[in-house]
Amino acid sequence: MVNWTEIDRDAKRWIAEAGEVIRRSFSHSLSIQTKSNPNDLVTNMDKETERYFIASIRRKYPDHFILGEEGNGDQVTSLEGIVWIIDPIDGTMNFIHQQRHFAISVGIYENGEARLGYIYDVTRDELYFAERGKGAFMNGVQLQPLKEMPLEKALIAVNATWLVKNAYFDQSKLVSLATSVRGTRSYGSAALELAYVASGRLNGYLTMRLAPWDFGAGKILVEEAGGVITTLTGAPLDLLQINSIFAAPPALHAKILDQFLLDRSNGK
Amino acid sequence: MVNWTEIDRDAKRWIAEAGEVIRRSFSHSLSIQTKSNPNDLVTNMDKETERYFIASIRRKYPDHFILGEEGNGDQVTSLEGIVWIIDPIDGTMNFIHQQRHFAISVGIYENGEARLGYIYDVTRDELYFAERGKGAFMNGVQLQPLKEMPLEKALIAVNATWLVKNAYFDQSKLVSLATSVRGTRSYGSAALELAYVASGRLNGYLTMRLAPWDFGAGKILVEEAGGVITTLTGAPLDLLQINSIFAAPPALHAKILDQFLLDRSNGK
Repeated sequence: MVNWTEIDRDAKRWIAEAGEVIRRSFSHSLSIQTKSNPNDLVTNMDKETERYFIASIRRKYPDHFILGEEGNGDQVTSLEGIVWIIDPIDGTMNFIHQQRHFAISVGIYENGEARLGYIYDVTRDELYFAERGKGAFMNGVQLQPLKEMPLEKALIAVNATWLVKNAYFDQSKLVSLATSVRGTRSYGSAALELAYVASGRLNGYLTMRLAPWDFGAGKILVEEAGGVITTLTGAPLDLLQINSIFAAPPALHAKILDQFLLDRSNGK
Repeated sequence: MVNWTEIDRDAKRWIAEAGEVIRRSFSHSLSIQTKSNPNDLVTNMDKETERYFIASIRRKYPDHFILGEEGNGDQVTSLEGIVWIIDPIDGTMNFIHQQRHFAISVGIYENGEARLGYIYDVTRDELYFAERGKGAFMNGVQLQPLKEMPLEKALIAVNATWLVKNAYFDQSKLVSLATSVRGTRSYGSAALELAYVASGRLNGYLTMRLAPWDFGAGKILVEEAGGVITTLTGAPLDLLQINSIFAAPPALHAKILDQFLLDRSNGK
């Protein structure tokens, strides 16, 4: 029988320790490599943090699987068993340019079902946490149930570049949405933006392409806070694939899907 | 003879006190009014904070002038004398929705020339400060001279809605820019975004319409940090008018103006 209390305690301890190491690193210089393109930055700190999680998990839970951004985990092709989905530093560009606005993201699933989710805003020392069926929390305080927000009063996160013609989604739909809400923001960390939806600081978040480690924890948090998270066309998220993402409180989610995101066959 | 040391000490004390009152207010409910449109929110806290600054300045410096967002200051039509340009809460929408990502902004000018600038990130307790000719500081530590950044590695702040057809600027120019840089962000507080340019966390900030109280302190900070701040077409800012705004390190500012923002008569 799985001891989730112990897993939770371990996850929180490892996240706190990794966060402390990252904060200390700001006094050292960062050595930066470039992956496939200039937007895809990897720092030593990403890699070291992932290695730390992997080593800790393998030592304590050798039968668990690990899906991580830096590729040092397992080749996860199924969600059977217990799977840790880890982004050691979500928001690497912010990490490098700003030394803030990034997060450690850890989601733990069992046979594809959400169990535990953690998003740790390292520089604010804020841990967003959710446990399946028990709700969502920030620094131990239960988050208020998500409030619905009328469309015209909603503050949503969408990056400016998705309002430009792109290969992934009809930008005109997002243009209509962005000009119908009260305001748009873009913080540059999917994990933090999902944590902000879960905590009501944003009323929605939309993006084109996220990997499982970008939303693995955020999905749990948003759902436990009472929100809905799907692809941009309302489909369930696939934890083994790149997905588009749309998270919001339920009524606002339905309204935005219907009025802006879905194709309408009646030509309206 | 003006005692700038004393003015600086007073400004810092009043800002710290106002920040403390704002932080305490989060435990109370906010009473929100709507000004001219739903995006233009005013809270009690805006008004109370402005009244606090005005009362403090008038008591100590009865011959100074005050230009403030909430309209309780003076009818300032010239920059003669010493003018305090104050936004009690820059980022009101963030203040209401997020209880973070907003700032107190205070710029002090003498006969139109920058003297002292303050941007206080209330929830992070970070005071960005600049004194004419002495540089820019955060929490007392001098900021590094602004680093130039190649266009393709630059992180710039521009709100998504300015990439949509609008009444103020040819959006196609901003679309070209936004897709040529490394990334775009939008934090929803002009003062903070200018403080981020001054501190190198952003390599540029562009927006369509700011009032003097939105950029009065940021202008001083950006310039003292070694950056350039103009309108979107490179003109000097007018402290008595609404302006478009473009701030960046000098070489990047010149490059973006030339390659993206200015009309080119050679048809290139």
